[in-house]
Amino acid sequence: MDRERSAERIERDIETLAGPDFTRSDQAIRRYAYTHEYRNTLAYFARELEAIGFAVEEDAVGNFLARNRPKGEPVFGIGSHCDSNRNGGRYDGTMGVVTALEVCRLASELGLDLPLQLVSFLEEEGSGFGQMLLGSRIIAQRVTEDDLREKFRSIDDGRSFWDCAADAGYSPDRWRECSHALDDLTGWIEMHIEQARFLQDTGNRIGLVTAIAGYVHADVTVTGRGDHAGATPMDLRLDPTLPMAETIVELERLAREAGGGTVGTVGEIEVDPGIINAIAARLRFSLDIRGPVDDLYRGVARDVAAFAEQAAGRRGMRAEFTERQNLPATPMDDRIVDALETAAQATGEPFMRMHSGAAHDTMCVADRVPTAMVFVPCVDGISHHPAEDADPADAALAAEIILNAVRALA
Amino acid sequence: MDRERSAERIERDIETLAGPDFTRSDQAIRRYAYTHEYRNTLAYFARELEAIGFAVEEDAVGNFLARNRPKGEPVFGIGSHCDSNRNGGRYDGTMGVVTALEVCRLASELGLDLPLQLVSFLEEEGSGFGQMLLGSRIIAQRVTEDDLREKFRSIDDGRSFWDCAADAGYSPDRWRECSHALDDLTGWIEMHIEQARFLQDTGNRIGLVTAIAGYVHADVTVTGRGDHAGATPMDLRLDPTLPMAETIVELERLAREAGGGTVGTVGEIEVDPGIINAIAARLRFSLDIRGPVDDLYRGVARDVAAFAEQAAGRRGMRAEFTERQNLPATPMDDRIVDALETAAQATGEPFMRMHSGAAHDTMCVADRVPTAMVFVPCVDGISHHPAEDADPADAALAAEIILNAVRALA
Repeated sequence: MDRERSAERIERDIETLAGPDFTRSDQAIRRYAYTHEYRNTLAYFARELEAIGFAVEEDAVGNFLARNRPKGEPVFGIGSHCDSNRNGGRYDGTMGVVTALEVCRLASELGLDLPLQLVSFLEEEGSGFGQMLLGSRIIAQRVTEDDLREKFRSIDDGRSFWDCAADAGYSPDRWRECSHALDDLTGWIEMHIEQARFLQDTGNRIGLVTAIAGYVHADVTVTGRGDHAGATPMDLRLDPTLPMAETIVELERLAREAGGGTVGTVGEIEVDPGIINAIAARLRFSLDIRGPVDDLYRGVARDVAAFAEQAAGRRGMRAEFTERQNLPATPMDDRIVDALETAAQATGEPFMRMHSGAAHDTMCVADRVPTAMVFVPCVDGISHHPAEDADPADAALAAEIILNAVRALA
Repeated sequence: MDRERSAERIERDIETLAGPDFTRSDQAIRRYAYTHEYRNTLAYFARELEAIGFAVEEDAVGNFLARNRPKGEPVFGIGSHCDSNRNGGRYDGTMGVVTALEVCRLASELGLDLPLQLVSFLEEEGSGFGQMLLGSRIIAQRVTEDDLREKFRSIDDGRSFWDCAADAGYSPDRWRECSHALDDLTGWIEMHIEQARFLQDTGNRIGLVTAIAGYVHADVTVTGRGDHAGATPMDLRLDPTLPMAETIVELERLAREAGGGTVGTVGEIEVDPGIINAIAARLRFSLDIRGPVDDLYRGVARDVAAFAEQAAGRRGMRAEFTERQNLPATPMDDRIVDALETAAQATGEPFMRMHSGAAHDTMCVADRVPTAMVFVPCVDGISHHPAEDADPADAALAAEIILNAVRALA
């Protein structure tokens, strides 16, 4: 295999898909479901795949599927997603689909007659409807009809997912049929940028994912009492910033104490009214608590919720913990990881086993299909940002490893 | 004096000025410099004062002045402000001007021939240009021409104070002449709602202010590193929420330790990028630190700035403390406070001496004129909010006390 030529093709794909027809912003990659730019992106993959004999379709909501075998015959699944967050970079998701495309090209060029199905999942980032992993959750039937008809709404205009999908020419009423995307898969491998700095810092070019962290997403609302910041003595105030501050410090302590890859983050803070000379009346902060070991990170979520309630209670206030979403950790399939390891060893390039702290569509595939993931480094761990950078040579290496693993498994 | 009739008149004034012609919101009192609603409010006071023989004018930027003696003759100053914050109530400021108007009415009805000047200061709340005490600071010459020409800008449209004032028909180029407002004053008394719950909780109807707290307004910016919340291990993150949290807790400790009425508040928190699954790249939080004793609250400001820098430094981050504004504490004039106390005692109603935690225009008068303030209770200490409530009977009591103090002093 000619890794340099693969790298050139991957670089060209990435470059093309960063052009003005494929992003709604000239400052960042911004593409999401049902936009003109997203359709262009799928059309690009369709053209490239049809050129090498793949039959292309979109399912009832817009997940993209391309296969070189008729339906009903076993195929090996590869792919990722090609939507971006709203201030995104070129590599997150898209490089995984591009690398899967390169695997298809290599298989075709080498005359391997390998049975493959490429998938590009809809709305992994949630930029369209605020719902991460939406396409793969629909495939896994991890949504309800009420979610799609009512709850999930466009960030742009508030219309329901259902109406948006129907207006875009899809058939949301047939969403249950989306599960067929996995019917014929004998295995699944997703390639993705790492979105952290482990690979870079350890000098590895490839990460073989052994588990994807589960997570709890939640909010804590603390209700205090809005008062004048100057006129209200320290003893007479109910200031919700204090239980919040104590909880932020405690979350760090709990996550470190839990260990085993557990992490906890407060990413959103909303203070009401949020003016310099007013004690806040109430505030909300988000919790993102994850890890590869369900008991550990769930314990942290439980403990930090209890801590916040106590911290508020000690000061005569009320804190309320509301879970937004949770997803259990997802172990990868040993046989597939082993096949990837054998293929990686054969390249002579440095690689490591690791877990994924970030969520990926593969979590929604793993229930029904033996799965694994391959990570490549991204510079300084930066992702979800226009400065995101990754090396097409690493993606070419991943394509070779994936191809050889699939050959060994098929 | 007929206190009931005074209360009725004050109630009618307040009721009138809460009508649709006098507020830009139907949910709150919202009036600020150069708006139609603010002009209507000044016009109301002008009509009422002209009816009892006062000559009315506005100065070069729009401070409102009314007097019953020619310029150059000594007068006693009374008044407050009649602008509101953007989500304000009926009483903050406006009740002080209304009470001063009632003092003028009583003096007129009783034929006392008392030399008086009523002042309603422009833009105490900062709703127009984000600058508190703006009118009285211009009178005290505590601004620069550059502030007025360039730095102070309309919250609504970003235009400079200078341009807005000129377009409204004022003469900002003559701002230095505004200092003449205080030229003839032999003393000054401002009545205001307390904006806290001391009077309510102690069962007092009148507070005699002995000092107005000074303050430091500042921001702390903490620069961390934006990373993926799931993929970044606890040991590899630079999360700016942690030094912030530690600083919020420390600010409370420092303010309590300082004592002597010192208070400290974090009212604004701005997290960048502020999404659930991203470690913040940076954040900003505000500090409002006050007290009647300059050394104490300034010590807290100094200590908390140093603490924030150390807390960030310990974690490999950088915190920067930037002062927005500071104003020293303002002692009131003993002779005027004593005269108010004598007048308060004569009423037989419960009163107390206290300091003001909130800033007031009177701070900008006190350098040149012997001053004092009178507080009345407001329900549950709520102010800067549509739910603000105060009793016209207390304002009528304050009017009687102020009138008798001025009689004794004049």
